Amino acid sequence: MPRWDADAEGRLLKAAMELFVDRGYDQVTVAEIAERAGLKKRSFFRYFADKREVLFGGAAAFEQTVVTGVLQAPEAIQPLDAVVTSLAAAGAELTSWGEPVRLRQQVIASSPELRERELIKLASLTAQVADALTRRGVEELTASLTAQAGMAAFTTAFELWAKSADAPNFHELIHDSLTRLRAAIGRRDE
Amino acid sequence: MPRWDADAEGRLLKAAMELFVDRGYDQVTVAEIAERAGLKKRSFFRYFADKREVLFGGAAAFEQTVVTGVLQAPEAIQPLDAVVTSLAAAGAELTSWGEPVRLRQQVIASSPELRERELIKLASLTAQVADALTRRGVEELTASLTAQAGMAAFTTAFELWAKSADAPNFHELIHDSLTRLRAAIGRRDE
Repeated sequence: MPRWDADAEGRLLKAAMELFVDRGYDQVTVAEIAERAGLKKRSFFRYFADKREVLFGGAAAFEQTVVTGVLQAPEAIQPLDAVVTSLAAAGAELTSWGEPVRLRQQVIASSPELRERELIKLASLTAQVADALTRRGVEELTASLTAQAGMAAFTTAFELWAKSADAPNFHELIHDSLTRLRAAIGRRDE
Repeated sequence: MPRWDADAEGRLLKAAMELFVDRGYDQVTVAEIAERAGLKKRSFFRYFADKREVLFGGAAAFEQTVVTGVLQAPEAIQPLDAVVTSLAAAGAELTSWGEPVRLRQQVIASSPELRERELIKLASLTAQVADALTRRGVEELTASLTAQAGMAAFTTAFELWAKSADAPNFHELIHDSLTRLRAAIGRRDE
């Protein structure tokens, strides 16, 4: 993708998130997003099918990145480590977009309908990760539980990251979450 | 509740699930459910506000049971054990309804819209469990991760139970799932 293309998409994302946060997702039009980004309305549709896709259009590519990462992890790696390593890499890439991604979380949190949509996307990702593990030979129930554990670490890390512009890098956050999860699950009758 | 009342509700539940499975949720009317249960349509509305409530009407009471269980667990119990013990008790009660609850899972699985609704109810339950843990003094992130781990064990156990009329009892299933989750999460670089 030529550099100017990436910039246009980035400008649209940033403009959209700022408008959504300022005025509420429902109140903002595609024309306004394009205008704030210094582009024609037509250009918006080169990148996004509609307004909702500004928020959720990246989900399929993110899912693909995570699944590929799980499938391509070295065979010797434990299933949960394959999942967390893949989610860490994809999360690091996602969070490298910075402020628009943080604003996106605010927008999602502001609307029950958007929260539901996000929940469904996350459930789909969890199911795809579990499926990738079974294709690596992991038994079905263990694959599902492992995917859910990895996703719990991921969403916890992501929420922490989104809360603060000074957050540690994503790799650090997800490994901290995983350590915390292990502690919560591992201890018994201490 | 007088016994005949409980029977009427049970008959409505059973009739509804059978019709939903046979003909598809969207095709079934409240009048047909009542008729199959040998009741008047008016009687249906004594128990359920609408057709969807046959599937989701129990969610609030279930959530309340689980939250109360977590809050009332002895102080010495580890957070995850408090969660799993409470979910095990509530799940055992739920699964004691037997076949209509199994059929309900089939109905939910048959419709993307119903699956989404179920997902949202489960997310709400997870958030409530996490909140109950924080009220017991568990730190917020650990509470969220613990709730998610407990719910992963619960949903896995529940799916196993729903799949087979010969399934072991729910307590056994959830503790097996938990053991499996611990194994998946605990092992590293073996």
